[in-house]
Amino acid sequence: MIVAMQDNATDEQIQHVIERMVELGFNVHRTTGETQTILAGVGTPAHFEVTEFQVLGGVAQAYRISSPYKLAGRGFRPEGTRVTFPNGLVVGGEEVVVMAGPCSVESREQIRLSAQQVAAAGGQFLRGGAFKPRSSPYSFQGMGLEGLKLLREAADETGLLVITEVMEISQIELMLPYIDCFQVGARNMQNFNLLRELGHVRKPVLLKRGIAATIEEVLLSAEYILSGGNYDLMLCERGIRTFETYTRNTMDISAIPVLKKLTHLPVLGDPSHGVGKRDLVPPMALASVAAGADGLLMEMHPNPDKALSDGAQSLFPEQLTKLVERLRRLAPVVDRVIAPAVSKIHA
Amino acid sequence: MIVAMQDNATDEQIQHVIERMVELGFNVHRTTGETQTILAGVGTPAHFEVTEFQVLGGVAQAYRISSPYKLAGRGFRPEGTRVTFPNGLVVGGEEVVVMAGPCSVESREQIRLSAQQVAAAGGQFLRGGAFKPRSSPYSFQGMGLEGLKLLREAADETGLLVITEVMEISQIELMLPYIDCFQVGARNMQNFNLLRELGHVRKPVLLKRGIAATIEEVLLSAEYILSGGNYDLMLCERGIRTFETYTRNTMDISAIPVLKKLTHLPVLGDPSHGVGKRDLVPPMALASVAAGADGLLMEMHPNPDKALSDGAQSLFPEQLTKLVERLRRLAPVVDRVIAPAVSKIHA
Amino acid sequence: MIVAMQDNATDEQIQHVIERMVELGFNVHRTTGETQTILAGVGTPAHFEVTEFQVLGGVAQAYRISSPYKLAGRGFRPEGTRVTFPNGLVVGGEEVVVMAGPCSVESREQIRLSAQQVAAAGGQFLRGGAFKPRSSPYSFQGMGLEGLKLLREAADETGLLVITEVMEISQIELMLPYIDCFQVGARNMQNFNLLRELGHVRKPVLLKRGIAATIEEVLLSAEYILSGGNYDLMLCERGIRTFETYTRNTMDISAIPVLKKLTHLPVLGDPSHGVGKRDLVPPMALASVAAGADGLLMEMHPNPDKALSDGAQSLFPEQLTKLVERLRRLAPVVDRVIAPAVSKIHA
Amino acid sequence: MIVAMQDNATDEQIQHVIERMVELGFNVHRTTGETQTILAGVGTPAHFEVTEFQVLGGVAQAYRISSPYKLAGRGFRPEGTRVTFPNGLVVGGEEVVVMAGPCSVESREQIRLSAQQVAAAGGQFLRGGAFKPRSSPYSFQGMGLEGLKLLREAADETGLLVITEVMEISQIELMLPYIDCFQVGARNMQNFNLLRELGHVRKPVLLKRGIAATIEEVLLSAEYILSGGNYDLMLCERGIRTFETYTRNTMDISAIPVLKKLTHLPVLGDPSHGVGKRDLVPPMALASVAAGADGLLMEMHPNPDKALSDGAQSLFPEQLTKLVERLRRLAPVVDRVIAPAVSKIHA
Repeated sequence: MIVAMQDNATDEQIQHVIERMVELGFNVHRTTGETQTILAGVGTPAHFEVTEFQVLGGVAQAYRISSPYKLAGRGFRPEGTRVTFPNGLVVGGEEVVVMAGPCSVESREQIRLSAQQVAAAGGQFLRGGAFKPRSSPYSFQGMGLEGLKLLREAADETGLLVITEVMEISQIELMLPYIDCFQVGARNMQNFNLLRELGHVRKPVLLKRGIAATIEEVLLSAEYILSGGNYDLMLCERGIRTFETYTRNTMDISAIPVLKKLTHLPVLGDPSHGVGKRDLVPPMALASVAAGADGLLMEMHPNPDKALSDGAQSLFPEQLTKLVERLRRLAPVVDRVIAPAVSKIHA
Repeated sequence: MIVAMQDNATDEQIQHVIERMVELGFNVHRTTGETQTILAGVGTPAHFEVTEFQVLGGVAQAYRISSPYKLAGRGFRPEGTRVTFPNGLVVGGEEVVVMAGPCSVESREQIRLSAQQVAAAGGQFLRGGAFKPRSSPYSFQGMGLEGLKLLREAADETGLLVITEVMEISQIELMLPYIDCFQVGARNMQNFNLLRELGHVRKPVLLKRGIAATIEEVLLSAEYILSGGNYDLMLCERGIRTFETYTRNTMDISAIPVLKKLTHLPVLGDPSHGVGKRDLVPPMALASVAAGADGLLMEMHPNPDKALSDGAQSLFPEQLTKLVERLRRLAPVVDRVIAPAVSKIHA
Repeated sequence: MIVAMQDNATDEQIQHVIERMVELGFNVHRTTGETQTILAGVGTPAHFEVTEFQVLGGVAQAYRISSPYKLAGRGFRPEGTRVTFPNGLVVGGEEVVVMAGPCSVESREQIRLSAQQVAAAGGQFLRGGAFKPRSSPYSFQGMGLEGLKLLREAADETGLLVITEVMEISQIELMLPYIDCFQVGARNMQNFNLLRELGHVRKPVLLKRGIAATIEEVLLSAEYILSGGNYDLMLCERGIRTFETYTRNTMDISAIPVLKKLTHLPVLGDPSHGVGKRDLVPPMALASVAAGADGLLMEMHPNPDKALSDGAQSLFPEQLTKLVERLRRLAPVVDRVIAPAVSKIHA
Repeated sequence: MIVAMQDNATDEQIQHVIERMVELGFNVHRTTGETQTILAGVGTPAHFEVTEFQVLGGVAQAYRISSPYKLAGRGFRPEGTRVTFPNGLVVGGEEVVVMAGPCSVESREQIRLSAQQVAAAGGQFLRGGAFKPRSSPYSFQGMGLEGLKLLREAADETGLLVITEVMEISQIELMLPYIDCFQVGARNMQNFNLLRELGHVRKPVLLKRGIAATIEEVLLSAEYILSGGNYDLMLCERGIRTFETYTRNTMDISAIPVLKKLTHLPVLGDPSHGVGKRDLVPPMALASVAAGADGLLMEMHPNPDKALSDGAQSLFPEQLTKLVERLRRLAPVVDRVIAPAVSKIHA
């Protein structure tokens, strides 16, 4: 930590700051300039808040120097994390993966058809919500356990992997037998109890950035899961809230290369939530991969106009097919390939 | 709902939109202008998404006309909601209440002293966290059940009411015997399962605005609690996230008069989280009441420099005392009074 | 400046950073921790960009320690700046001033009536736009020079002072004979050539915060005017752009006490642009003064429903009268008074 | 315009709204639902503000239906605008252009070397600032007219076109002999007098989005230039201000496909200002073109570490070369090509 004192700080104030730093466990190096004294705190006490120093008497500014996350930092695993799935698929390596499917599981027919379309388009994961966190209590709230079973069934028929959103601790056990990857939604990015619990699970997790979360906060949330021992973690940019209202959110594409630099974890992009309008999904999917994404999470529905939720941002199946074709041509430009299509196993 | 078609929309496109509106349960009134057709959907189907229409062919714009919340709207209870507490204190009437205390319960001595200081300053509620949602896994995480007991004890000694944050469903039962009011923090404003559960509880709830939540979203979250049957609900502005970094958040004081207009629920202000720096808390507390707040929620600590969390934004006890004195003089300017100090009951 | 090197920075990288610091004119103090080296640059070269260091090899973080503004800082004039007007009125002292009037000067009758109403309500300044920067080229663009003359005439009849917006350098000369105070609008807060020119003028300036400007940027813009020699400068918070759309902008009331702390310049609030809706103006005006504002700038129109611009946020005359009455009662709570009403001089 | 009345609006209130709509020139169609009355105003009066209606008694909501810009709308020129330069280069067609160069012209050697490097890398335009709008009065402010001459000279030696920023009306005449394209910076996007003047010029203009400007506001600003008769206009996304501080701004890549849909004007991306850090520029440049950009504007400096401004976001020459190579491979994926390198004419 660095504490820069005000020009007119008294010796007493400086002493008080030094004492508090020492008390917390810092080694303090003092630099006395002509007008200003600067205190460098070396070492990293388990437990301190930089804001505490910002309001001490005589302090001009106080900065944290060491990053507040450790396990999530690039330096912890410079070669990068590769998350391996039961079928051998690896996320975080050379291959870029495609996860697609409807916002919600609505019926056996709908999810089955979705799975076939995702597989045919060349995706590797089937996504679909069984428990739906909706902003209005009057909206469709999901099929629950039945939805999970239908997801698994549809995925197994096509060879896809299953990713679905977990909203609370009590759902973890319930989901384990049916899914290949937990998805933590933007609203739960700082549901720390849930994160801690997912740190104890032996199944991959995809953690989405909250709509008001800084990149540093995403990494602090990742730290919760990693510190529990679960290293099969992927991050996902899905749009932040800004003043622009034409799009549902503003997808922060730059977060993708920034995260790739700051952390060893794979980073995906979710253009569906990022923009909220179907026609903008393909260009933003291409942009995500061009910027270095390790995968894409997208909404597709066999009949978006009749979807019970998020229809406006769901791709038509033929849009997904065309998009994946383009992605296959784009990936090599950034020294990547799109993961091969999962061939249907028992067909 | 209103759907404005594009100037060059075809008859087929217009027909398609009309059919979809009818299918959802709208009565459709069509206005055909020289260049543009406008479709007004009258009636309020239980279940529709305006975004669905925004991406239909030929549509220029689609707007929801009816508000998506019902029970939370001012019209539902034009006279305003008054939340009554066991000791007869009413929030939402003429009196403005003061809730204060430390961020976290740290020890019996600390919370006891805090309670005495809050009571002496003229507050009515003791606040204090027992379960702490912290952005870093390496920060202090709260005393849990023990903290609840200490809170209750300290409050009872002084005649204060207890408000504390509930973070998940499993804590509700645990807290019920010890508290007078549940507080839902900004990060849980859209934890809909938690909100639904709190709708079934017979104890007041204070719901904080999320840092990226629009005013409409606050009211939709309120709707979850109200629709469960719990009308003892208060809202709280505590700062939103903006580009300004000098303050921890940007406290949206205007949200107070806006909410007072849109809803019948009492509205409080939390200047501590709103600005994050102690010295800014008194001016923002005064501003909140000047703008119409029904109460204030503030952090105060007997020794802020030694606080285990949020010390930088915690008032010194003497600051709280001075502030409440000013508030007593300010309230009458806006036709209110600060609620009387709670006299110590069994002393 | 502080440069914190990465844990794995090489000696060569550290040397390179030190050399560059020395080259710019810093004295460099090096702190070598167990894992991390920290370089403190003491002294303030006229000319450096902290971002340059952030991208040098081996650098973890780089911070500016000295504030980038000098003349605007509180320390430059701890007692605070008082701007004195020809009629003896002082802004920045104990008195809080009220500036009001229509968005645009529309006609002699309109501005004359406005002036009488502002004076009767107890205001000290007449505001009104003669040159209007409008976001659409099809909107009313102002009366120009004729508007200036009408403003002056109306003000002189009532004893009010005149404040109006200057949009470009060429208007300065034109305005000088007719006005008492230049207003720099939010869109011109970073029109540095205009600011520099206003630094050479011997007339007070009110500088509004841009809708995307940080508090530090406001002070840097102030520095442009101050460094030209014009110290009769006032700042004004008028709302920043956020994700909330219910209000036109989000008025950052906390910027008022923050600016009062960081700078010696008087700080006003403009609730009309801050919220954009008439009914929200009185609560936000009260909140501004409660938070420490030295004055208010507000839109009032004799007939807001017929205003050529900004009618929705213009107060009715009777609203202004009632508001000033409340302000007179509120000011003493924060140890201030509202400036006395200007009595009509030649009536 | 659509005006939705409140459920409990009185007949008198409804009549008042209708009268005001008629007064402004609307044809009013009334839809009377069971609980709510909706008024559709057909026709487009030259002059009205939707906010005026939002605050009328009994009004629940009021929306503008017709878009406030006309000439900028896609419908005005569905085939798209192509801006042709003296050397035959076309922006807005199949070819994607590359504009690069230093933030500021610093010396003959520097700009000459820059031009050679841009040409060698395969760019078509040389960028460089002669008049610099800097947020601090103590920073380098540009070489002025001398800088313009050096720019022209360097460009002519290499066959590049010149683009430079115009900051005020008085600079237009000065610049005309030396440049091929005016650039309007983010801070001047709403300098309406400047825009109006540029509408009368017969030279292409590149208009950058302001850091707090919505997409609609960009198009309204474009309308100012178009309505003056200058159709050689290009738009440019360069990042908006959000809460994220790791990057200088948040580059809104989605604005590129959105603008391509809403307007016929070419749309470029400026990743240098968008992110502010050199290493992020290549991924964001690739993302821009993947998302449909018609060109890129980027900072490159022969020696970024010694740049007088914006060094941190300036590419090294070899980075530009590598990036253009990648762009050449990426463009065909989205059915485009990078414009051919300008061969050096008198070499």
